[in-house]
Amino acid sequence: MFDLKSYLNDVRAPVDQMLQHYLSAQSSATRISHAMTYSVMAGGKRLRPVLCIAAAETVGGSREAVLPLACSLELIHTYSLIHDDLPAMDNDDKRRGKPTCHVQFDEATAILAGDALLTLAFEILGTAGIQCASDDQHRWLLAIAQIASAAGFKGMIEGQMRDMAFEGTVISKPELESLHRLKTGKLIEISVGAGAMVSGASPRQQQLLQTYAQHIGLAFQVADDILNVKGDPKRLGKATGTDNIRGKNTYPALLGLAAAETLAGQLVNNALKVLDAFDKGADSLRAIARYVIERKR
Amino acid sequence: MFDLKSYLNDVRAPVDQMLQHYLSAQSSATRISHAMTYSVMAGGKRLRPVLCIAAAETVGGSREAVLPLACSLELIHTYSLIHDDLPAMDNDDKRRGKPTCHVQFDEATAILAGDALLTLAFEILGTAGIQCASDDQHRWLLAIAQIASAAGFKGMIEGQMRDMAFEGTVISKPELESLHRLKTGKLIEISVGAGAMVSGASPRQQQLLQTYAQHIGLAFQVADDILNVKGDPKRLGKATGTDNIRGKNTYPALLGLAAAETLAGQLVNNALKVLDAFDKGADSLRAIARYVIERKR
Repeated sequence: MFDLKSYLNDVRAPVDQMLQHYLSAQSSATRISHAMTYSVMAGGKRLRPVLCIAAAETVGGSREAVLPLACSLELIHTYSLIHDDLPAMDNDDKRRGKPTCHVQFDEATAILAGDALLTLAFEILGTAGIQCASDDQHRWLLAIAQIASAAGFKGMIEGQMRDMAFEGTVISKPELESLHRLKTGKLIEISVGAGAMVSGASPRQQQLLQTYAQHIGLAFQVADDILNVKGDPKRLGKATGTDNIRGKNTYPALLGLAAAETLAGQLVNNALKVLDAFDKGADSLRAIARYVIERKR
Repeated sequence: MFDLKSYLNDVRAPVDQMLQHYLSAQSSATRISHAMTYSVMAGGKRLRPVLCIAAAETVGGSREAVLPLACSLELIHTYSLIHDDLPAMDNDDKRRGKPTCHVQFDEATAILAGDALLTLAFEILGTAGIQCASDDQHRWLLAIAQIASAAGFKGMIEGQMRDMAFEGTVISKPELESLHRLKTGKLIEISVGAGAMVSGASPRQQQLLQTYAQHIGLAFQVADDILNVKGDPKRLGKATGTDNIRGKNTYPALLGLAAAETLAGQLVNNALKVLDAFDKGADSLRAIARYVIERKR
């Protein structure tokens, strides 16, 4: 039986250590580096780094080699949370049980801290690419292009635009699915896909793993919506019931709670089925798929 | 005599065409792509792309090969303007004679349009890197790392933090110089440096050209401060005298107008002296150096 808890601990420790290293300014700490560190070190689940590393290891790659990539994905994720929380967007005061970045610092600092995390992600990717063998450098360039595309105006950013535009209007299930695919799905997909790719995956392996990620990315979102209905605010570190108050389009609102739970289970099963093409080297990815809908926060 | 006017026209046309190409969404245009296009196509001087291309050509590189890099620098510059103009930062209503992005669209869209331009810059750089010969790929990775560093929390973003922090307080000449080096200087330097580097420059050539750029970057800022005092608002497309009203630290305020003008001239002379190491292939860079302080907008 794969021990996910100890795997997550094993993987998160070097990720957190490396993130802390990237965020420390060379000389004295600045207000901007404080704000960046505050949000990055606020206790996220590190889902994207964990997926990235698990995918790398599944195709025979080393954890150490993929660590910069794993960290860059977390930085991009954190930047998106800081900006989404801003008064002009979702106007959230709390995140992971702590004041959001613009509440703890100020709006200008929060905008710039997000900008800086996004920029730092690409500095890390470029630097890691230079340091690898020249035969592998095209893989890092491809990862940079694909990550930027997933996070860009045809991916994550368009997802946030739609999320805001759709607030208070009722949309269809396909519209909701495409919103989530853009807003969170594409970055989760590329976390798995790029982790595999820079570790030497074949195109077919990368494709299979991205399909796996597509299913769990959506399952993650459905589970998130369910947690907003029936989760424990203390464990979540944020209030529940907020989606309903805001008129957000969610799976429980659209399908009912029971059908949303069934859907999440189906998506995880689909993800597991894709992994049949891999041996027990993919057990970490299998365990993560189950965790996505069983988690309490 | 080098004809700068026709050189600028020759260089700007393909840059604008390529920018337009990058900004067009594959399917139908979205609100976010409209906002991005609005700000990128608002009629900037394209100083960074022009410098990048001129540096590339000075070391024997091709204009076509460096075009994606030139465009990515303009996208990063435009993103920084959109975010700096936001109500939480400089709160500017007009830029280049037109309503700023958050006025024309809304604040959330402006924040995301800036994010998207920054992200697109790295997508373009990664894609261009993949397409070049494998022996040159490390040069593109290095450009990505160096551009991100120049634009990041130890570069441009720290410059904007200091600019806001210093407003209304009097700072020394070295503090003002270091502020400008961070806020605008580093990106201008790397525009020249990266243009030369991906075009096959030797480390010594790149170093010389970056020193040139350091001088004209500062000269550009001094000239900008002077234009804010005695420029023509119509030609500038924005109000003058605003720095004084806001208590911004400027060279004319610190040194007096005449001494500021002398300083700008000295900086351009320093830049020209560095170019003595190059033959007439560097005439475009020489002409740009003079233009930096002679421009009316």
